[in-house]
Amino acid sequence: MSHNTFGRVFRFTTWGESHGPALGVVIDGCPPGLPLTEADIQPFLDARKPGQSRYTTQRREADRVRIMSGVFEDDGGRQVTTGTPIHLMIENTDQRSKDYSQIARSYRPGHADYTYDAKYGIRDYRGGGRSSARETAARVAAGAVARLVIPEVSITAYVCELGGDAIDREAIAYEEIGKNPFFCPDISAATRWGEKVEAARKDGSSLGAVVECSAQGVPAGWGAPVYAKLDGELAAAMMSINATKGVEIGDGFAAARLTGEKNADAMSPGDDGKPVFASNHAGGTAGGISTGQPVVCRVAFKPTSSILTPVDSITSSGEATQVMTKGRHDPCVGIRGTPVVEAMMALVLADHKLLHRAQTG
Amino acid sequence: MSHNTFGRVFRFTTWGESHGPALGVVIDGCPPGLPLTEADIQPFLDARKPGQSRYTTQRREADRVRIMSGVFEDDGGRQVTTGTPIHLMIENTDQRSKDYSQIARSYRPGHADYTYDAKYGIRDYRGGGRSSARETAARVAAGAVARLVIPEVSITAYVCELGGDAIDREAIAYEEIGKNPFFCPDISAATRWGEKVEAARKDGSSLGAVVECSAQGVPAGWGAPVYAKLDGELAAAMMSINATKGVEIGDGFAAARLTGEKNADAMSPGDDGKPVFASNHAGGTAGGISTGQPVVCRVAFKPTSSILTPVDSITSSGEATQVMTKGRHDPCVGIRGTPVVEAMMALVLADHKLLHRAQTG
Amino acid sequence: MSHNTFGRVFRFTTWGESHGPALGVVIDGCPPGLPLTEADIQPFLDARKPGQSRYTTQRREADRVRIMSGVFEDDGGRQVTTGTPIHLMIENTDQRSKDYSQIARSYRPGHADYTYDAKYGIRDYRGGGRSSARETAARVAAGAVARLVIPEVSITAYVCELGGDAIDREAIAYEEIGKNPFFCPDISAATRWGEKVEAARKDGSSLGAVVECSAQGVPAGWGAPVYAKLDGELAAAMMSINATKGVEIGDGFAAARLTGEKNADAMSPGDDGKPVFASNHAGGTAGGISTGQPVVCRVAFKPTSSILTPVDSITSSGEATQVMTKGRHDPCVGIRGTPVVEAMMALVLADHKLLHRAQTG
Amino acid sequence: MSHNTFGRVFRFTTWGESHGPALGVVIDGCPPGLPLTEADIQPFLDARKPGQSRYTTQRREADRVRIMSGVFEDDGGRQVTTGTPIHLMIENTDQRSKDYSQIARSYRPGHADYTYDAKYGIRDYRGGGRSSARETAARVAAGAVARLVIPEVSITAYVCELGGDAIDREAIAYEEIGKNPFFCPDISAATRWGEKVEAARKDGSSLGAVVECSAQGVPAGWGAPVYAKLDGELAAAMMSINATKGVEIGDGFAAARLTGEKNADAMSPGDDGKPVFASNHAGGTAGGISTGQPVVCRVAFKPTSSILTPVDSITSSGEATQVMTKGRHDPCVGIRGTPVVEAMMALVLADHKLLHRAQTG
Repeated sequence: MSHNTFGRVFRFTTWGESHGPALGVVIDGCPPGLPLTEADIQPFLDARKPGQSRYTTQRREADRVRIMSGVFEDDGGRQVTTGTPIHLMIENTDQRSKDYSQIARSYRPGHADYTYDAKYGIRDYRGGGRSSARETAARVAAGAVARLVIPEVSITAYVCELGGDAIDREAIAYEEIGKNPFFCPDISAATRWGEKVEAARKDGSSLGAVVECSAQGVPAGWGAPVYAKLDGELAAAMMSINATKGVEIGDGFAAARLTGEKNADAMSPGDDGKPVFASNHAGGTAGGISTGQPVVCRVAFKPTSSILTPVDSITSSGEATQVMTKGRHDPCVGIRGTPVVEAMMALVLADHKLLHRAQTG
Repeated sequence: MSHNTFGRVFRFTTWGESHGPALGVVIDGCPPGLPLTEADIQPFLDARKPGQSRYTTQRREADRVRIMSGVFEDDGGRQVTTGTPIHLMIENTDQRSKDYSQIARSYRPGHADYTYDAKYGIRDYRGGGRSSARETAARVAAGAVARLVIPEVSITAYVCELGGDAIDREAIAYEEIGKNPFFCPDISAATRWGEKVEAARKDGSSLGAVVECSAQGVPAGWGAPVYAKLDGELAAAMMSINATKGVEIGDGFAAARLTGEKNADAMSPGDDGKPVFASNHAGGTAGGISTGQPVVCRVAFKPTSSILTPVDSITSSGEATQVMTKGRHDPCVGIRGTPVVEAMMALVLADHKLLHRAQTG
Repeated sequence: MSHNTFGRVFRFTTWGESHGPALGVVIDGCPPGLPLTEADIQPFLDARKPGQSRYTTQRREADRVRIMSGVFEDDGGRQVTTGTPIHLMIENTDQRSKDYSQIARSYRPGHADYTYDAKYGIRDYRGGGRSSARETAARVAAGAVARLVIPEVSITAYVCELGGDAIDREAIAYEEIGKNPFFCPDISAATRWGEKVEAARKDGSSLGAVVECSAQGVPAGWGAPVYAKLDGELAAAMMSINATKGVEIGDGFAAARLTGEKNADAMSPGDDGKPVFASNHAGGTAGGISTGQPVVCRVAFKPTSSILTPVDSITSSGEATQVMTKGRHDPCVGIRGTPVVEAMMALVLADHKLLHRAQTG
Repeated sequence: MSHNTFGRVFRFTTWGESHGPALGVVIDGCPPGLPLTEADIQPFLDARKPGQSRYTTQRREADRVRIMSGVFEDDGGRQVTTGTPIHLMIENTDQRSKDYSQIARSYRPGHADYTYDAKYGIRDYRGGGRSSARETAARVAAGAVARLVIPEVSITAYVCELGGDAIDREAIAYEEIGKNPFFCPDISAATRWGEKVEAARKDGSSLGAVVECSAQGVPAGWGAPVYAKLDGELAAAMMSINATKGVEIGDGFAAARLTGEKNADAMSPGDDGKPVFASNHAGGTAGGISTGQPVVCRVAFKPTSSILTPVDSITSSGEATQVMTKGRHDPCVGIRGTPVVEAMMALVLADHKLLHRAQTG
């Protein structure tokens, strides 16, 4: 079943294909009275926008967002949300007219070409159609609205590993994240990655990456047992992003290598009556509910399958062929995935803030 | 918001606390006409049952399942599903009467004690109440029913790493899985693990584990873009299991360290018109939809927080204290998590089989 | 698709067949901290219980409710809700052992016998199985919990028409409702109905009824555009009750015969800043959202199809037959439907109270 | 909670306000491979379009639909659905610029003005904003797509009563429905209604109506116990339409006045093994599941509250005022509600066709 809606009470539904006229998102359940203009959304789209550096695809998209519904002037003349559906639309402007005959007939390994055909018997092959990462622009737009719902929370994502080369955690300087094309908080890693990505691009190859995201300011009590654990909601959110293959909360797989004593986040009384934690192996959740510590997750992005190296494949009529992906592509999709990870974190937390107050008042 | 239902059209809802009179699960949306008796469910519960070896908790629970609704005799005299809700109930028989005063007043680090109180203002502290892993018995029972919905699929889970000690993948012998208390397919790893777990238990410590699960026979086409990708659904399912902190599909985080060429699963024409894949880095999905290869995931279980070593903590009134967990506990919860991982895989796949035929007929 | 769950954030799921061992309901999303014992639920079940007068079925069911989960003692020693699933179970005690061979093979017109077979290929024919109105006991139990969520609201339902004989609205005396076996607020109508129902029972016939329900104390602002209008939610709720064929909000079909001027509910300023309405043709909603007036609906119950008069029908193998329903049955199912209507009103309003505060805080 | 999505597996989400730039609908879960162009949708929008006769509002809207996503050319060059979200958009072209100062400050009785303010603290007052019946254009567009999912079903709606004046059921001639401005199957009633509506319009008054809808060709087995009964789904669907206050399935409230014998739909063996029913009091459902007979419902539309006659009301600051609605309005909203009722019938049935095959294959 096609399922293009995410969320429980703060819900969003996306639509659109890579090479259609536009793409968009309908946000439903947003609280009323939140000041919202296109200027609140655009910076997040700009961060994800292609063509920002030579390390990302050269497709040129303005990615201008337009608010089509759900806002109105309040008494003070500010444009605010009204509580009704907010439709955000982004036109596709750079659908380069080209010859799609090869991609129409061959299945690119690692792409959704074969599986869409197997499922639906038809696919919009232009630029990957619905399976293109262009869909994530809609999420990023929705995420900007979600942030307004959770002003108490501050969310930061960054690439913490690229092509197997991890940042030095002692060298993290968060203010660097916005200053390099890799959303990298370690300036020397960023330098190394520049060379790596450039080399991969020249080779017609691609690289994977790991994106880490931390949300500060989440109060204790968000999330829920059993099937709406914050861990599970975040996992679902992150694994819905294109090219993701793994997700961790807190120490994740490394926790499986610790003993119980080492993994325990000891607590002591804080000045404000809330506990002070000695560590955050758990990544800010216990029993699926936030502890008041930063909520931390990590997401693995595979190297994109769009590479210039020919790979054995088959045609849609079942014959052997070889496929290589010419044209513009991201040599490391994890980079532009960073703002998307932030957006999904915001969307999950906004939903759970509202769910929490639904049940507990 | 409490949310105790999982699934879209094949849905289940669990209820019950660790030390209440019983626990159960209501399965809704099950296809009619499937032969189902308690004997179809019991073996899966027995595999998860505590007290099966000295490496798991010594709590003694018969874990007898009772089918309370949703089945009836067909014309041939077999008991089959009727398409109406199937309620499965398991009585709690070994809620050892004991003094809960310490756990009632102190927060065990890593447990849900503090977060439940922060969220709800109250918690059933006896044995962890709703946050206890006893809830997973209900999922295992539901999973047994889900398996009947997908007879074409064969699911196997096993521990592939325990306390940081991984199996030798060259030495995998699947027939060993059921023959040792660790669901371990590598006989020599199982021997090592026995010593590790025994040592941890004696030390009052605990160990983490990684469970791998493979589903063979899933046809191409199950799953869905965008927010119901098989990857996301599995991630949500697995991360709803107690003590899990990470999930991977296919190569997972390792894929983030490969180049695009290495990660590509080349395809060639198969005899039956379906593609033959040269590798399965993707873990059986592309674009969130099954490829026809085995669907493979891995789940990280943290070491249980129930340890005999005292850890700093606070009381419910905010004073400093130390907590150690006396009584019966699993030194490695990942072991008994193995049948739960299998169950969640079955539940996700059954749901998506039905969703797929809803949309595509 | 079988769908046995109702509600959005205050949700309940029912299970069980008429002649199975028990039936029950799992309530999910209930706010924590509400005092709840079986004594809070039992009176509502007693009001719905069969065998209370000679005007209802003579089946004898104790309808004892048992709380199986979701409650715990608070600091003050009171048993309160914990925010986790509340499972309520009611044993079936009077499943009279009898010969079901006729009903097993023949389709009772107006019953779900034929349609269940057409849909599922199998049915539990004992007492109607899942399609029996016994399922409504579970809703009534859930409704008792819902009432605790909305203490500001007072709900009253009553039969306002029976066998085509309506109450005199000038003669309504609400205190009479609980004093006669018809939940009738007009004492002289109750007397007439007694004769009507008795006559129908002797004739082996049955009668329809209309139940009216009013909820006082609902503040302005509950409900929602567009597909969660209070009107639509109530309509869905009421039309899920067995034997219902129509629902009206406010004046309902009569409003379709008024002019705009006559139908307008004029407003004037109230002392408390809220409007005072001159009338309530709208039944307490405008645009799907509560106005602060009483929320009023009316539900049409058809005469039960379980009658002693033979009716032409077919067997499950497609042969002509005649069916008459021997045994215990309600000559007017609308009577015992009254507590069920109240319960569904409570369940809808509780859900919308929580939804409203989710969105608006 | 705002909730602008309807359906379970064939779902649609609408957005847009009366005087915003556009409105639209995202359809998710549509089966792939269905030929779909704008020409398949436009005729249904044209039937609902304002300004078609002097009996409806004189607002002029082209109501041109544009398919923004979810379709692609198949091998044969036809444009077909791809299984991904179909976004349909309709621009608002005749938002007459005018002075909204009165409506901005006063609450029109019977409209959602007061309740939106009570709920959200803000409302888009231009033409009713989100609460305007313009939203139904989006449903009608979605309904046109739903019809393609259920080619076996033929749906017809018509006004059966207007201003209290009912059609003569003996005089029904279905071919007349499209030939008069009232969707009336009784030509002499149509003539009378013309005078009635004209008189109401001149008086600045308005009239209510009852719309009946019949779906032929629904096979036995669609719908579901318990909370997804076809009756409940249709009731929710119809009562989500603006200005509706009542809904009936089959005989509805009249069934409550019949005896069990009179209400019974006797069955006899048909030539094709399916039953032949002697009557259809039940309106095509039993136990919430379709019987194979026509599915019949009736919907009550109140007279619109937009009238020229002044009615007492209050301002948003709580002062007494009088309100009359100048400008363009429908004197009988039930007329243009007819295509909307048809659309909602199609949307419910398409959803249940897919749900049925999900569960039963």
